[in-house]
Amino acid sequence: MEKITSPTLFLDENICKINIHSMANTAKKHDLAFKPHMKTHQSATIGHWLKDAGVEAITVSSVKMAQYFANHGWNDITIAFPCNIRQYKTLNELAADISLTILVNKTEVAEALDQKLQYSVNAYIEIDSGSARSGLPSDDIREITSVVGAINASKNINWIGFYSHPGHSYGCRSKQQIEAVHHAVIRQFKQLKNKLSSTDYNFEVCIGDTPCCSVGDSFGPVDAISPGNFVFYDVMQQQISSCQYGDIAVAMACPIVDKYESHNQLVIHGGAIHFSKESMSTNDNNHFGLVAKRYDNCWKPVEPYSFVTKLSQEHGVISCSPKLFQDYNIGDMMTVLPVHSCLTANLMNGYQTIGGEQISMMK
Amino acid sequence: MEKITSPTLFLDENICKINIHSMANTAKKHDLAFKPHMKTHQSATIGHWLKDAGVEAITVSSVKMAQYFANHGWNDITIAFPCNIRQYKTLNELAADISLTILVNKTEVAEALDQKLQYSVNAYIEIDSGSARSGLPSDDIREITSVVGAINASKNINWIGFYSHPGHSYGCRSKQQIEAVHHAVIRQFKQLKNKLSSTDYNFEVCIGDTPCCSVGDSFGPVDAISPGNFVFYDVMQQQISSCQYGDIAVAMACPIVDKYESHNQLVIHGGAIHFSKESMSTNDNNHFGLVAKRYDNCWKPVEPYSFVTKLSQEHGVISCSPKLFQDYNIGDMMTVLPVHSCLTANLMNGYQTIGGEQISMMK
Repeated sequence: MEKITSPTLFLDENICKINIHSMANTAKKHDLAFKPHMKTHQSATIGHWLKDAGVEAITVSSVKMAQYFANHGWNDITIAFPCNIRQYKTLNELAADISLTILVNKTEVAEALDQKLQYSVNAYIEIDSGSARSGLPSDDIREITSVVGAINASKNINWIGFYSHPGHSYGCRSKQQIEAVHHAVIRQFKQLKNKLSSTDYNFEVCIGDTPCCSVGDSFGPVDAISPGNFVFYDVMQQQISSCQYGDIAVAMACPIVDKYESHNQLVIHGGAIHFSKESMSTNDNNHFGLVAKRYDNCWKPVEPYSFVTKLSQEHGVISCSPKLFQDYNIGDMMTVLPVHSCLTANLMNGYQTIGGEQISMMK
Repeated sequence: MEKITSPTLFLDENICKINIHSMANTAKKHDLAFKPHMKTHQSATIGHWLKDAGVEAITVSSVKMAQYFANHGWNDITIAFPCNIRQYKTLNELAADISLTILVNKTEVAEALDQKLQYSVNAYIEIDSGSARSGLPSDDIREITSVVGAINASKNINWIGFYSHPGHSYGCRSKQQIEAVHHAVIRQFKQLKNKLSSTDYNFEVCIGDTPCCSVGDSFGPVDAISPGNFVFYDVMQQQISSCQYGDIAVAMACPIVDKYESHNQLVIHGGAIHFSKESMSTNDNNHFGLVAKRYDNCWKPVEPYSFVTKLSQEHGVISCSPKLFQDYNIGDMMTVLPVHSCLTANLMNGYQTIGGEQISMMK
């Protein structure tokens, strides 16, 4: 810590590996394929830790990320994003080398791709199980069978099943609420499977949000899971009830550069270009992160809670208790648990482990 | 546009140069030194455009950014951020080569630096003129003179005056409100100057927010301005009343990847890792950007307004009018004016001009 002079994202390798093995065990216990999402960490090194836990197939959020992981030896990759047909050239390059799975949600996408693809790709149809972002409603059998038909009519696209990211689980604030979302998602896929039972369709179902995969106790017709955030978790996931603070594997270390006693305010080097502007509310305080310390080999928030209450491009303003204010001086480092580890990691562009090792990520 | 396959930040070079010359003219008209902030664009190329407009001294938000611009030929740089004493080695490297100005807001910072500095640096004391981020209150003469004393007692720090970023102008929503903030800031510096008139202090005053510098009609005791955002402006600045839509010099081009007629929703490739999660409210809609088109050599929002209403890591959800929904198909590009151009530019890591030229920025 003495050598750190600017905002640094620390990674607790042990906690991260425990999170990975815990999710791998969940998949094993429920007989699910485990296709973890790499968008949170975006790192070949952390990919190796997943490989060590038995992972063979992965999920990514962009064609660029698929290229990065294909270049790092992964040969079964799902791009869990509605297929961007403008990127057909790179899709062809990838499909020439690896087993590539894409999302095709519209007949016109299947038709446009069919003109452009020179190699075989697999396709999921995305189901909007409640997040209202993208995907077809699970009860719109007419549209679903129409897209299946368009895919099956294509030369190079093989329909393999349904994908869903139940992102509405991020609105949950207890395990009970997560379980309710999870059961509703499972129910949708059971009904979809029933409705398609008269067809000769043979398909798999993959779902991929961290809250449901962390808490869910039965997976019914689900065949595969693709959560991503679980490798690190964060304050948001703790509040959702997907994890406990001790499961959070990343924390920002930021130099204290100023302090103002009249309002118990510390100023850190650590702003919107380090944390991101993702905010949340804890005990009626809207904030961008929680001040933390190491206790018992993990980070935990200091009590009473002290928050990053304001971010500008490089500045972070910490509103703290009078006690905490006295404990820190200009030049000290302060540790902050991020609200949303995916966006913080994306901005920080690399990790430093507790042991002092540098871990790089996709540029 | 045909060759673009992924989210791309377009820069209208003409509008940017007009914005630069307009602010340079404001400085000239009011006999102010013009030390533009480089944090918005972070680009050596755009730095050249500023140099072409007569700029000799610049402002940055980090030591790293000071290094970048020093490496690109700038030799008078202010780091407008409370001095991070842990970075004294890099400060020494910079101060060996260029005229470096830092912010020193505390006696202990002056004393700690004095132990470490081997080369001469200039220092402003920062004044908190209302933004409640960092700096001393302008009426705390005791603390101000104490810090001046500590700086003057040091070997290598030369006190040159006061710096302030009146960031509370971002809460304004009309020119009248900006003028009121600006006049209050000017009044504070007039009073400070009066209170210090009995001393032998010789100092300058530098202020640096885009709203006040864009709208202010008189600058009283101010000697220098250091706005940054004005090179691009953005939807937030239009709402503050610092600019008009036609002054916005950057826009995101994003591929449309999905569409859902039941709720007039388009899905673009363009998410939180492209736009940032900075949001604002327009006509009671919380949003992350405004759908726009080119009219008369500038971008303007389509009417009725269509918003980016939801962002996840890579997805953007556009809520649009039925008419706009019909106008766009999967595979088309959509143009979006960003809420906060500084954070969007920081994430996009480079620009494409309307003429097709690639412009790089600090890595």
